Amino acid sequence: MAQLISERRDVDFVLHEQLEVGKFAEQEKFADFNKKTVDMIVNEARNLAIKELLPTWKDGDTIGCTFENGKVRIPESFERAYDLLKKGEWTAMSEDPEWGGQGMPKTVALAASEFFNGANYPFMMYPGLTHGAGKLVETFGTDKQKQLFLKKIYTGEWCGTMLLTEACAGSDVGALETMAYPQPDGTYKIVGNKIFISGGEQEQLSDNIIHPVLARIEGAPAGTKGISLFLVPKYRVNDDGSLGAFNDVVCTGIEHKMGIHGNCTCSLALGGKDDCIGELLGEPNKGMAHMFLMMNEARLLVGMQGFGCASAAYMYSLNYAKERVQGALITNPKGGGVPIIQHPDVRRQLMMMKSYTEAMRSILYYIAYCDDMAHLATDPEEKELYEGLVEVLTPIGKGYVTDRSFDVVSQGMQVYGGYGFIEEYPLAQLLRDVRITLIYEGTNGIQAMDLLGRKLGMKKGKIFMSLMQKIGTSIAAAKAVPELAPMAAQAEASLNKLGEVAMHMGKTAMSEKVMTAFSFAHPFLDVVGDLTAAWMLLWRATIAQSSLGKKKKEDAFYNGVIKSAEFFIYNQLPVADGKMNAILRGADAAMSIDESSFLS
Amino acid sequence: MAQLISERRDVDFVLHEQLEVGKFAEQEKFADFNKKTVDMIVNEARNLAIKELLPTWKDGDTIGCTFENGKVRIPESFERAYDLLKKGEWTAMSEDPEWGGQGMPKTVALAASEFFNGANYPFMMYPGLTHGAGKLVETFGTDKQKQLFLKKIYTGEWCGTMLLTEACAGSDVGALETMAYPQPDGTYKIVGNKIFISGGEQEQLSDNIIHPVLARIEGAPAGTKGISLFLVPKYRVNDDGSLGAFNDVVCTGIEHKMGIHGNCTCSLALGGKDDCIGELLGEPNKGMAHMFLMMNEARLLVGMQGFGCASAAYMYSLNYAKERVQGALITNPKGGGVPIIQHPDVRRQLMMMKSYTEAMRSILYYIAYCDDMAHLATDPEEKELYEGLVEVLTPIGKGYVTDRSFDVVSQGMQVYGGYGFIEEYPLAQLLRDVRITLIYEGTNGIQAMDLLGRKLGMKKGKIFMSLMQKIGTSIAAAKAVPELAPMAAQAEASLNKLGEVAMHMGKTAMSEKVMTAFSFAHPFLDVVGDLTAAWMLLWRATIAQSSLGKKKKEDAFYNGVIKSAEFFIYNQLPVADGKMNAILRGADAAMSIDESSFLS
Repeated sequence: MAQLISERRDVDFVLHEQLEVGKFAEQEKFADFNKKTVDMIVNEARNLAIKELLPTWKDGDTIGCTFENGKVRIPESFERAYDLLKKGEWTAMSEDPEWGGQGMPKTVALAASEFFNGANYPFMMYPGLTHGAGKLVETFGTDKQKQLFLKKIYTGEWCGTMLLTEACAGSDVGALETMAYPQPDGTYKIVGNKIFISGGEQEQLSDNIIHPVLARIEGAPAGTKGISLFLVPKYRVNDDGSLGAFNDVVCTGIEHKMGIHGNCTCSLALGGKDDCIGELLGEPNKGMAHMFLMMNEARLLVGMQGFGCASAAYMYSLNYAKERVQGALITNPKGGGVPIIQHPDVRRQLMMMKSYTEAMRSILYYIAYCDDMAHLATDPEEKELYEGLVEVLTPIGKGYVTDRSFDVVSQGMQVYGGYGFIEEYPLAQLLRDVRITLIYEGTNGIQAMDLLGRKLGMKKGKIFMSLMQKIGTSIAAAKAVPELAPMAAQAEASLNKLGEVAMHMGKTAMSEKVMTAFSFAHPFLDVVGDLTAAWMLLWRATIAQSSLGKKKKEDAFYNGVIKSAEFFIYNQLPVADGKMNAILRGADAAMSIDESSFLS
Repeated sequence: MAQLISERRDVDFVLHEQLEVGKFAEQEKFADFNKKTVDMIVNEARNLAIKELLPTWKDGDTIGCTFENGKVRIPESFERAYDLLKKGEWTAMSEDPEWGGQGMPKTVALAASEFFNGANYPFMMYPGLTHGAGKLVETFGTDKQKQLFLKKIYTGEWCGTMLLTEACAGSDVGALETMAYPQPDGTYKIVGNKIFISGGEQEQLSDNIIHPVLARIEGAPAGTKGISLFLVPKYRVNDDGSLGAFNDVVCTGIEHKMGIHGNCTCSLALGGKDDCIGELLGEPNKGMAHMFLMMNEARLLVGMQGFGCASAAYMYSLNYAKERVQGALITNPKGGGVPIIQHPDVRRQLMMMKSYTEAMRSILYYIAYCDDMAHLATDPEEKELYEGLVEVLTPIGKGYVTDRSFDVVSQGMQVYGGYGFIEEYPLAQLLRDVRITLIYEGTNGIQAMDLLGRKLGMKKGKIFMSLMQKIGTSIAAAKAVPELAPMAAQAEASLNKLGEVAMHMGKTAMSEKVMTAFSFAHPFLDVVGDLTAAWMLLWRATIAQSSLGKKKKEDAFYNGVIKSAEFFIYNQLPVADGKMNAILRGADAAMSIDESSFLS
């Protein structure tokens, strides 16, 4: 059967040949997850994704969500899909079994997540946000809060959300106006209005919804330092775990969006009519810091959503290009029509999609791998290294990956020609769905600022240096392989230039030219991403080169891995070099232009 | 009032300061179109666009087109809009007054077209295709055909379409299967099925629809050389011009598309039940050549559609960025929220949008200008020069302009943040609408092949050389202006590299590496487009620099023109240099990869 969502062979390559996740089983924590178990997990996840989740993807788009008489309805087919996820215990794969998790390495969970999100990510947002809410309770909750809420959240019995955004507080969360009034019993009355709440209300998947809410305690300072985190259930929870009264979390409407129609995006009014009672989660005025601890995970999930669309777009386009007969070869104009995969421009499109897809897969899995390694590390330096890599790679895994995923999906639409624009074919929905991933969980502009403003200088640049070193190590290994040496040399030249660019950016961001520096934050994100992608592709090619000839039927795959690296390094890295030259040139037109010169 | 579709000041700049269209009035043919008249035309067009067409744009999207009981319905508000276009005599602006046209220079007509298409291009496709059908009748019709059809088409009384595509004949028109059977009276019975026919059926705008149809006369050769063009009315036309019997052109369905919902995309069955009678238009077996004569115009219209979306996206985003308050300045973190236009990353986004929008406006107007000049030229060499420039710039005006327009609209969505993804705001529809412009009228891959395969080598490269020379002349002029000399030097270096790239592409496209060469056709289109954009921006900056200080209130505009050039030349041209390096490197991974290595 043609691969529909993700190339299974490549998933296995990343898991076992690039990251060797089977070795995690040597550690006590992951003793249950040897290679055989990992393969079984991926099998099961893939089956569930293709057989049960993928068929609900179109429903999400065409039936979508409705809001009538104060009730939100989501597509009916999502109920069964959610039920299967719960029953298969896929809702908290890498969490502590004590609280209903499966205790898997994150790298392994990511493979399941890739198939699930590739099949229907707007649906997967319901369990995804639920998991995030659980993580907040696990990390900051009191014992009682954990006892009452955590297992029900991690097992998917109750859904969860995340209430940050308000009409005047989007990228600037610190501007939020929702208030929390202390009550004598230690709880808080929450009053405010939240918007853009994914899965904010529904009755079909769960009989309660747990909302972590950012709000300001009466009298707390303005801005981010006066924000606290609260646990606000839709229905109050009695001490015995049973449901109590409605907690006045009222859905006032849902958004009509360009894509992800299957996920309801709700406006919620808290405490507008009656009492909405919240419990403090964690410390007062530490809400932003608490949220930030969860942010990396949420951002990487968004990276996976974008990537899921890209991977599916590549698979669909590839299948289409092999089947669609159109036009003769330019070298044989009288030879009649050929499958369009034989035409040079279509091949360029497919190679672009292939190389980015493979690079992005490895980037995302590698970040999960670093997270696992950080948790396993006993040596503090090793722990610091891997934690640092997660930090510096998160804006890449979210910002760069979703930017490029959008490009890949759009390229896939181009492969389909006119059919790409027709809603009966998959590319239109993929393009509409993928577009939000560049915006939410911090716009990609925010990701770029995070990379430049926080990550580049973190620990005096040590973390960014460790990324550069990791890339350098892989390049050196590739250089030692004669077949790959020319590619490695090109990558090395670009990496050296990136070193120069990072120095330049770090210096100007601390100078009076700080505004100009930040106007290059996004191009900087692009080029750090490009070098990270080149790194992954070269690393992959090095493994593939050494594996060639071992099993004849595998050579086609390994050759493809090498070709992806070649295409990217020779065709995309020169463009990255050009971007780096522009950054080094540092022209300041964007900042020096007077606002009046924009006219309008 | 904030500009909603296009920056009027910039339109005037291109018309009067860059291209000096008022001078056309010195020629007898255009004596009626002095500067004052031109300004009046632009005023009227802009008013009509903003007051009457723009309010119908959302209707097109939300009401859309329906197909029930064999009837197509388009949004009701389109009826009045179409009526106003007809009454205002906007349907054949640059055509011969003898046939109902206004005899305007194309450059002037383009300004009206910019406002109309920016307001509601899916609606404008109805009159747009009508005009194209009229042009075919004017160029290839017999006297009788012209008498019977032409004036009614040009005045919009009857609508027109273009029937090329079939399910197995998209990019490869030569594969079409529609047949034409000669009848004793000299007419033909047409039998076949066409798909993707924009405006293929409706009853609300006109009581007849004239379909130019590509079909193969019984016994004609296979492929493109056996294709003829026919005139096929929906209702036959009696010799006195009155409507006769239904001509068995049956709409069998409409497409459900990602965007341009206001334009019905029809499947048409010809002669499936009864007789569908067509008259030959032009010479037998010359259908493709005849169509090609109209292709440039159709492609430039698509360029304008894409550009219209980009220009509107820029205007909307700019207004939003000035109004939306969010986040403090990084240089003044305690200063409270500021309009987002003050944030460096947003400024970069707006400058990207501004510079591309201005460059694309100038490119499209310049192509129309070349067309006018070619028609006015009495000197054969001058005529050849301008005709050649139209040829070589058409793939830029369609392919490059729509590629970049999509980028600009997507960037605009990013400026809006979460609101960009919500359908109540304009960006979502703009992004959905603009996307088809990269596909239809020859996908942008086809445009790239046209540039490399036909235009680059046309007249032994003389035409491409004349483009290079034109660019060089503008660079030389800018170099003589001290303030612009550094920019000009950067552009000159890139132009020299483009010369090298063109030589390389020309050579490899004629060698055994032809397939590899064509796998770089699209990057080649990109860089020729980039240099064309840089040329326009530098030309504009040269005028702006010499105009600074003349009228104080104009300086903001002129400074903005110069900043656009600076931004593009220092930030985008280095990226073009990188792309050119990749082209020169000529890596062949896309062609040398074995098909089996794509897997799936």
